[in-house]
Amino acid sequence: MLDRFAQIRAATEALAAPLSPEDCAGQSMPDASPVKWHLAHTSWFFETFVLEREQPGHVPFDPAFRVLFNSYYQTVGPQHARPERGLLTRPDLERVLAYREHVSEAVADLLARGALSPAAREIVEIGLHHEQQHQELILTDLLHLFSRNPLEPAYRAMAPRAQAKPTPLRFVAHAGGLVEVGHAGDGFAFDNEGPRHAFHLTPFELGSRLVTNGEYRDFVEDGGYARPELWLSDAWATVEAEGWQAPLYWRRDGDAFSQLGLHGRQELDEHDPVCHVSFYEADAYARWAGARLPSEQEWETLASGRSVAGNFVESGALAPRGADERDDAPLQLFGDCWEWTCSPYGAYPGYAPPEGALGEYNGKFMANQLVLRGGSCATPASHVRASYRNFFFPDARWQWSGIRLARDVR
Amino acid sequence: MLDRFAQIRAATEALAAPLSPEDCAGQSMPDASPVKWHLAHTSWFFETFVLEREQPGHVPFDPAFRVLFNSYYQTVGPQHARPERGLLTRPDLERVLAYREHVSEAVADLLARGALSPAAREIVEIGLHHEQQHQELILTDLLHLFSRNPLEPAYRAMAPRAQAKPTPLRFVAHAGGLVEVGHAGDGFAFDNEGPRHAFHLTPFELGSRLVTNGEYRDFVEDGGYARPELWLSDAWATVEAEGWQAPLYWRRDGDAFSQLGLHGRQELDEHDPVCHVSFYEADAYARWAGARLPSEQEWETLASGRSVAGNFVESGALAPRGADERDDAPLQLFGDCWEWTCSPYGAYPGYAPPEGALGEYNGKFMANQLVLRGGSCATPASHVRASYRNFFFPDARWQWSGIRLARDVR
Amino acid sequence: MLDRFAQIRAATEALAAPLSPEDCAGQSMPDASPVKWHLAHTSWFFETFVLEREQPGHVPFDPAFRVLFNSYYQTVGPQHARPERGLLTRPDLERVLAYREHVSEAVADLLARGALSPAAREIVEIGLHHEQQHQELILTDLLHLFSRNPLEPAYRAMAPRAQAKPTPLRFVAHAGGLVEVGHAGDGFAFDNEGPRHAFHLTPFELGSRLVTNGEYRDFVEDGGYARPELWLSDAWATVEAEGWQAPLYWRRDGDAFSQLGLHGRQELDEHDPVCHVSFYEADAYARWAGARLPSEQEWETLASGRSVAGNFVESGALAPRGADERDDAPLQLFGDCWEWTCSPYGAYPGYAPPEGALGEYNGKFMANQLVLRGGSCATPASHVRASYRNFFFPDARWQWSGIRLARDVR
Amino acid sequence: MLDRFAQIRAATEALAAPLSPEDCAGQSMPDASPVKWHLAHTSWFFETFVLEREQPGHVPFDPAFRVLFNSYYQTVGPQHARPERGLLTRPDLERVLAYREHVSEAVADLLARGALSPAAREIVEIGLHHEQQHQELILTDLLHLFSRNPLEPAYRAMAPRAQAKPTPLRFVAHAGGLVEVGHAGDGFAFDNEGPRHAFHLTPFELGSRLVTNGEYRDFVEDGGYARPELWLSDAWATVEAEGWQAPLYWRRDGDAFSQLGLHGRQELDEHDPVCHVSFYEADAYARWAGARLPSEQEWETLASGRSVAGNFVESGALAPRGADERDDAPLQLFGDCWEWTCSPYGAYPGYAPPEGALGEYNGKFMANQLVLRGGSCATPASHVRASYRNFFFPDARWQWSGIRLARDVR
Ligand SMILES: [Fe+3]
Ligand SMILES: [Fe+3]
Ligand SMILES: [Fe+3]
Ligand SMILES: [Fe+3]
Repeated sequence: MLDRFAQIRAATEALAAPLSPEDCAGQSMPDASPVKWHLAHTSWFFETFVLEREQPGHVPFDPAFRVLFNSYYQTVGPQHARPERGLLTRPDLERVLAYREHVSEAVADLLARGALSPAAREIVEIGLHHEQQHQELILTDLLHLFSRNPLEPAYRAMAPRAQAKPTPLRFVAHAGGLVEVGHAGDGFAFDNEGPRHAFHLTPFELGSRLVTNGEYRDFVEDGGYARPELWLSDAWATVEAEGWQAPLYWRRDGDAFSQLGLHGRQELDEHDPVCHVSFYEADAYARWAGARLPSEQEWETLASGRSVAGNFVESGALAPRGADERDDAPLQLFGDCWEWTCSPYGAYPGYAPPEGALGEYNGKFMANQLVLRGGSCATPASHVRASYRNFFFPDARWQWSGIRLARDVR
Repeated sequence: MLDRFAQIRAATEALAAPLSPEDCAGQSMPDASPVKWHLAHTSWFFETFVLEREQPGHVPFDPAFRVLFNSYYQTVGPQHARPERGLLTRPDLERVLAYREHVSEAVADLLARGALSPAAREIVEIGLHHEQQHQELILTDLLHLFSRNPLEPAYRAMAPRAQAKPTPLRFVAHAGGLVEVGHAGDGFAFDNEGPRHAFHLTPFELGSRLVTNGEYRDFVEDGGYARPELWLSDAWATVEAEGWQAPLYWRRDGDAFSQLGLHGRQELDEHDPVCHVSFYEADAYARWAGARLPSEQEWETLASGRSVAGNFVESGALAPRGADERDDAPLQLFGDCWEWTCSPYGAYPGYAPPEGALGEYNGKFMANQLVLRGGSCATPASHVRASYRNFFFPDARWQWSGIRLARDVR
Repeated sequence: MLDRFAQIRAATEALAAPLSPEDCAGQSMPDASPVKWHLAHTSWFFETFVLEREQPGHVPFDPAFRVLFNSYYQTVGPQHARPERGLLTRPDLERVLAYREHVSEAVADLLARGALSPAAREIVEIGLHHEQQHQELILTDLLHLFSRNPLEPAYRAMAPRAQAKPTPLRFVAHAGGLVEVGHAGDGFAFDNEGPRHAFHLTPFELGSRLVTNGEYRDFVEDGGYARPELWLSDAWATVEAEGWQAPLYWRRDGDAFSQLGLHGRQELDEHDPVCHVSFYEADAYARWAGARLPSEQEWETLASGRSVAGNFVESGALAPRGADERDDAPLQLFGDCWEWTCSPYGAYPGYAPPEGALGEYNGKFMANQLVLRGGSCATPASHVRASYRNFFFPDARWQWSGIRLARDVR
Repeated sequence: MLDRFAQIRAATEALAAPLSPEDCAGQSMPDASPVKWHLAHTSWFFETFVLEREQPGHVPFDPAFRVLFNSYYQTVGPQHARPERGLLTRPDLERVLAYREHVSEAVADLLARGALSPAAREIVEIGLHHEQQHQELILTDLLHLFSRNPLEPAYRAMAPRAQAKPTPLRFVAHAGGLVEVGHAGDGFAFDNEGPRHAFHLTPFELGSRLVTNGEYRDFVEDGGYARPELWLSDAWATVEAEGWQAPLYWRRDGDAFSQLGLHGRQELDEHDPVCHVSFYEADAYARWAGARLPSEQEWETLASGRSVAGNFVESGALAPRGADERDDAPLQLFGDCWEWTCSPYGAYPGYAPPEGALGEYNGKFMANQLVLRGGSCATPASHVRASYRNFFFPDARWQWSGIRLARDVR
């Protein structure tokens, strides 16, 4: 665990390494946080839930950090207002990096000395998975920040890419019936992935790959964003209020579309998966395409038992990539894009949040959000599982979120 | 059907009879509509979906009404803005009543002459159930309007009431397993009640009656509205933003609570069911009480096969009433209060909305809302079924919505 | 005074006579009040400031009215929230008319018996001028309410109108120098019209008549609403935020413009004065026309000593009418449209508000508003003077407000 | 002029020198800009209005800067949205400093070579005064940014201060009559300071010094913020909406008050002038104190001919300081705090903005703002004159704005 701790902490810092202090400080919307805040908050997590409890004679690195870098743990105490994280020009980046080092050393020391109880080690484990979540958010939030700058900076130059052989969309069927859903086995899982339980499925089929930019462009050009009958009522209200006309980072210039990503603005590749769409858009697209979104139980049933391989952050692509026909369908279940399901995020039967502050980690968000599955091009590979449940509000678009179709089989 | 048509149309008008033209014109929030608008819109439904299509040489009563009284049918055409329904001082009440009479006569004539195809008769059937929904809304919206008037007018004087014998809260268990959910049989049901399908239940138990005012007051007095750990994250944000401290129509005067209802302001009866709570409050109360809200499948499983009897609008109480111990638990499944479930409102497996404008009736609302079950003291008795799915946003409080507890059985 | 009291009270009621109870109850924006509220508030004024103080053994007509119909007098006590006046479906119109009758009789009785002190008679005098202000507001607020109804009802059918002979725009010069400004003499004036004081004027000239619809249409068609350089900074922000493209009640259909008024929608008459423009629009128009708006001192200097004659409410036109060349320039100083000045509404040197609640009448509004002069087609003729100062916020458009140009003479 | 150019450019950079890149990038509200933006915008001014026009073969430093650093000049072209200036993490501070150097060298070169026409030299002169305005804004905006950080950083440590001998408040009278107002003579002045013109004054008197923290605290403790009768109507609405209870940077701890400034949080010194109050508060305080605010003509009449000496930015105090009895009353007319007048900011008689883009500098803001006079502890000494007119909205509090009383003499 000591090695993994060091590796994961270092990976976070590596993400921030190419950025200036200003880049690390900016906040472009309440839902997104500054990179610097992510760097500090992930350290706050270890300090608050491990060092405070386990380190003999623990002295806080800076008592003010307890409030500044508390995200939403009411049980821990007050929090600095989320929309104002971008106003924290102090502590500066240097001091936040010192904070990281201080916390990393202290936790590593406890780990090295075998000074942690099993329960504390479990919290370190959660802290590592938590840190990986914020690694992904560093990239999503940074892209959003850059998107609000007319200069449209690139995080990294694009490496030459090998083009996959485009693969036609097929459907992979499942006969339905009683299945088991939820995390099984010994590995790590978040509380919201259990308890494992029986679920009855009606026969269905899933798309063999993600919906592509080219397919989604057809929807746009068919007037998709101007036809209320394709949208849920709340979705249409959002389309009108926000003036949506395409995915978040698309821009139309005449007949051509381009897309902003971590390599700056690029011409749209029609074989790459569409991303940065909301649930509302995914749902409308599916309706237009004569299909629907999968339920999380359908998705998990087809994903279970498959190897968790795909285009994750370690590939270095930092963008979803076209499926390759040589692989076994359904393709792209893992990596590339988080896949919107039609399942509202809620408690599995028998779910109870853990006691204490960590009970706030997942349970209190079980309203108004939708489950996404499978991880994205910004997710660390070791972070995801078939039972992993991510969740966002239906209008959220700044994640690498995409679309897999599903259909009833009658 | 002709008789039912006449009876239901007359029932709507009877609800408005005690009201002045001003009372019928006021709109107190975008979610609520003026009584006059309900009177007209329910006629618009028959004119648009029956007369326009079926009446030879149909001439619109007033062409402007097609827009003014269209609620949300994009397929029919544009709609007068919902928050501005209260600005329609014209047409006045008299003319709207003339519109009702005109439409009623024309539909009755088609019915009497047997001039309607089976499909058209089905739409008349839907129109009657639609009209009953608006009968309930007339009362909920009127109460909300009256609640914004410092004079706190009463819709009707309260009749003397027989006090039920208070009944202690027990739990009624169910062993779980595979059940069937959704409408079955020949009677009328809305599209969203089907298809009937298998669902796997984990063992659970349901409260034997609704939560009472007295029980809820204990929650209030235990600081329930000041303890974030009891609330979902979005719920707590709402509590803070709205300053909620008790159910919608409660008022605290020193140690005493009173409640506004259709009989004006009354001292709180501790044995009556608590009502006018949001999903957020119902969920927080349940957590405080060591329980949870039932799923709609759990609710339906216990309600199926029971007689649909209870305190509906026909009782004349116009308020939820305490459960009576002499009855068979679970009590109050029907009538008194709509019961919040923890189930987000969505499509059953295999659901597809009907073709055409009526496809907008239910399907497009399948996001961001929660299912409520069982009907209320303002619901017509003939309107509800065990499979009936009502739905509202989680912060809605102006319906007669209450709480039934549920628990896992381990 | 008894006669004038009876006459003015009756005139208010006559304005409401053609309206339904619903028409009298609607409120279309926070700045506008329901007709019924005006009817009640003007009675509240007499009850609160005269009867409460002067009537032996005074018993309130309804104690709740003290709050419901208090507009903004903090010294009197709390007020029903202004944006919610339209929710007061009770008291109904009938009861408000009874309230009026009750108050009128009581005040008339005191007047008839000579029971009022000079100070109290002075308050009755203020109450009558106050009532006349609300007579005008009844019409402006009603027109706004009707404008939000797609049926665009007419308050009154338009009588045949004699067309004035169009008169070209000239400028009438004044040599400037030290003048006296503010009310002089024995007649009634509001506190804000004094003290009379010296003011130094630079040479200037005033337009000989109001700006016409035809002239303003040229501004519109010259892209006036799309050229930021013509607008004040705050004005341009308002144009963009509100999407203004023409005066409030204009509508463009192809090349033609029409205008909504108390006679419903009418083709635009190019010789009639433009009205329902904000200060922002008046100022931008003047800049486009190579002129500016007059100061209130300039306006008053030219208006002083002229007879207060013009197109007031008594003419029955209920709309501004084109100037007639036969008259003596400057024309239309009184009646037709309130004329925006460039003068922020403030205190004259030495101004002090009266003691007591009536000190709130004018003084506390001396910020952020602009002075308008001369009265409109909805103003009672006996209400206005050369020294009369009306005031509205710079974005207000629902009054009959128009434009007179001014220029420096160099 | 070359020396002054170099000196003023360097002074701007000196203000930013103690700050980190993050400090220079943060924006705490739409009205305030990042330090980095000020650094760039003042260079944009010279590049756009001098180099573009006068430099042979001018090549833009970066074409994107034309939009990014345009504040509000519609005539120049589009502007990056003001509330999003804090999102510009690129260009970074280093590049902005390079931009400054590039522009400074080019302008200095033109100046050194005598290559500028008199008209162009006049624009350089305006650019220098413009730069001084932004020097003050760098400090006001930075303090606001720091105030939103719970760490309450200090810009600079406080030097030991000599305490002035407290001086009682007296009033200095003026007999009124016809005076001349507006800039006279050869020195630089902004367009809005002229034309010089006659103005008639009624006899008045001005407070001999600024209102102190101690005096204002008495107002606070007398319930000043809870008594609507002391406030203008719009002011009271703001007090309620914003929850104001004291000046912007005051904090109450029990009975003691402290104040945040550029030296961090300090105990309130009761003899120092109160600052960071809005016009609304200044006006309410004056009413409470039985006085009023001066008009700008009154202020200018007493300030004219006096030496422009006071506590300006060069003193290094960076905070207003108590008046010293040894000086000649009225004291503190210059420096310490901008003094709110009761005069709405408008055009003097005969005012016309210059042709071209610089016509937008002052003229288009002549609505809804109030004039302040005399400069503050953050103003460069060479920037201010007796005729200088600053202007802010009536609710603005983040400037060093204070209160001088005035009274009518009867
Ligand atoms: Fe976190
Ligand atoms: Fe309906
Ligand atoms: Fe009034
Ligand atoms: Fe500037």
